[in-house]
Amino acid sequence: MSDVRIDDLPVRDELRGTSPYGAPQLDVPVRLNTNENPYPLPEPLVERIAERVREAARGLNRYPDRDAVELRTALAAYLTRTGGHEVGLRNVWAANGSNEVIQQLLQAFGGPGRTAMGFEPSYSMHALIARGTGTGWISGPRDEDFAIDLAAAEKAIAEHCPDVVFITTPNNPTGNAVPRETVAALYEAAQAAKPSMVIVDEAYVEFSHGSSLLPLLQDRPHLVISRTMSKAFGAAGLRLGYLAAHPAVVDAVQLVRLPYHLSAITQVTALAALEHTDTLLGYVAQLKQERDRLADELRAMGYEVTASDANFVQFGRFADAHEAWRKILDRGVLVRDNGVPGRLRVTAGTPAENDAFLDAVRELKNEVELSG
Amino acid sequence: MSDVRIDDLPVRDELRGTSPYGAPQLDVPVRLNTNENPYPLPEPLVERIAERVREAARGLNRYPDRDAVELRTALAAYLTRTGGHEVGLRNVWAANGSNEVIQQLLQAFGGPGRTAMGFEPSYSMHALIARGTGTGWISGPRDEDFAIDLAAAEKAIAEHCPDVVFITTPNNPTGNAVPRETVAALYEAAQAAKPSMVIVDEAYVEFSHGSSLLPLLQDRPHLVISRTMSKAFGAAGLRLGYLAAHPAVVDAVQLVRLPYHLSAITQVTALAALEHTDTLLGYVAQLKQERDRLADELRAMGYEVTASDANFVQFGRFADAHEAWRKILDRGVLVRDNGVPGRLRVTAGTPAENDAFLDAVRELKNEVELSG
Repeated sequence: MSDVRIDDLPVRDELRGTSPYGAPQLDVPVRLNTNENPYPLPEPLVERIAERVREAARGLNRYPDRDAVELRTALAAYLTRTGGHEVGLRNVWAANGSNEVIQQLLQAFGGPGRTAMGFEPSYSMHALIARGTGTGWISGPRDEDFAIDLAAAEKAIAEHCPDVVFITTPNNPTGNAVPRETVAALYEAAQAAKPSMVIVDEAYVEFSHGSSLLPLLQDRPHLVISRTMSKAFGAAGLRLGYLAAHPAVVDAVQLVRLPYHLSAITQVTALAALEHTDTLLGYVAQLKQERDRLADELRAMGYEVTASDANFVQFGRFADAHEAWRKILDRGVLVRDNGVPGRLRVTAGTPAENDAFLDAVRELKNEVELSG
Repeated sequence: MSDVRIDDLPVRDELRGTSPYGAPQLDVPVRLNTNENPYPLPEPLVERIAERVREAARGLNRYPDRDAVELRTALAAYLTRTGGHEVGLRNVWAANGSNEVIQQLLQAFGGPGRTAMGFEPSYSMHALIARGTGTGWISGPRDEDFAIDLAAAEKAIAEHCPDVVFITTPNNPTGNAVPRETVAALYEAAQAAKPSMVIVDEAYVEFSHGSSLLPLLQDRPHLVISRTMSKAFGAAGLRLGYLAAHPAVVDAVQLVRLPYHLSAITQVTALAALEHTDTLLGYVAQLKQERDRLADELRAMGYEVTASDANFVQFGRFADAHEAWRKILDRGVLVRDNGVPGRLRVTAGTPAENDAFLDAVRELKNEVELSG
């Protein structure tokens, strides 16, 4: 029996031969590969989390608030204060990471017999979650500079009539933002074609030069803005994603969410972090400066850099990106090879981490071939 | 736009007209409706959770261990110590509640074009998660006493050839256990028919008069035992479910799990609870006594009681179960109407809570009509 393998089980055909998603978790001095926030939570917040968790643990024998009312109210207040558009409890939903938010949206609006479209390269989990929910996946186009060409995108939407359209802005792994007018136009195209749901993934929006697309929710009941506390709130380990949308969308997601999906501990930890929003957004301001410094110095070295509104920078162009990735790793710095030809992605870390990275790529310049 | 409702959205057809799953959350003095453990975590465990969470919060800016190695190792040790069968890290997988465990199993082994069968009445989330994953649902039979009639069940399996078979033991909401030989025979029937995966849901097994079916894993690579910390560990608010199976099953589930699905905070909180296993199992022993007392006293009052191996008791038979539910609620005690004709379910609470319940049903006896 020890020789039974996945393929000997009655697993779904489309899973055969696939591998679990995830960046290599390597023990390296400088890890700039998963767009984590390099700043640990400030000690007063750590204490506040311990305090709120202690209180919640006393009632842990009871199921959590299934509707996470206190947390959703606090998230709505954060969005209203920073997003330029007023939302309330009924507009907001939260889950274990934005991956689960997206999974719930695809269970409600995608699924067997339906399709979703994204403009690639983009966050690869969108396609993987589509597969996991039985939703067909359509890869939409980006141009050579990784921008969404509106005419080409409109044509693809009209041709394929997807049930769900993903727009990631700022985009991951390329870093560039999608202009507001483009998103508005794609929403119109998607309504004309089907009508479809349009999911704007704003995981990195707090790092943007521009502002959130939250105001677009006005009069667009098929629009969803997806967010996360993993990046700007420095809480990747917490797994807290959320969305803002018309209340009917939140009602629909509640038809497919697993009951009590969000633990009492997660709810109070997120609430504690939201109490410290201003401190955490201070780190975001520092990271934006470092992100710009990385881009500037990479350009000065002769690398091609994609304009970034996120906490990471895509750079290249390498004749062999994976070879370059390996040589940077040999110097103790882990960046990400997302499979974009000729490009690598580096997360903005602390100034010292970024210096280590810049030293590594400065040396690298003499060893590898650039193209383009 | 305020008049947009779910049905105005492009939601999946099978969701139209449905309601979110979940027991009514009512503010009542005595809540015996969701099979929660009535004993709050002991204060030393509460302190240990706060301590471990404080430590984990300092690294919360980083993603959690995607494979939850420390937690799975501890769960394997618990199963080995209490389950009569040795399992290790590679046999165990954990997720946000057993609901998510089951969802992942159905994503890997069920899904569009496939079917799952359960013997009903049983845990209704099995059918709902099947729907949420696009898996067809087949309701298998139980006899009048809520036992699985082996011949009838084997016939149903041979007829429908389901891809996944659920066996809940002790069963919820009826409380009765399925004999080991029946499970072994159903496994054989399922292999002959397809072969299918067989998921034994042991959420309540720590309350059983018998022992876990964990030893059945030997030489049965298509068998999965599903467990939870919600009940015996008094941690419904934590959302920690897990499974034990052949390592190939764990590998398969990792193909569909959302990456980093289990937060760092959840992992350390569960680890803290596992450190206090013996104390928590002491509460289980008390609850088993109370469960037996509830059954005995209900029988003495003239109610019909289903033999229970869980932390709850199914009783009746009422001419109108919902009317009886309402009259018990009027006396400040919330029990559960699971939709089983003529029956209600009461969770074993503290001795005082159980006394309040018993007083209520003693009075009730003079007001409602019993049948059968």
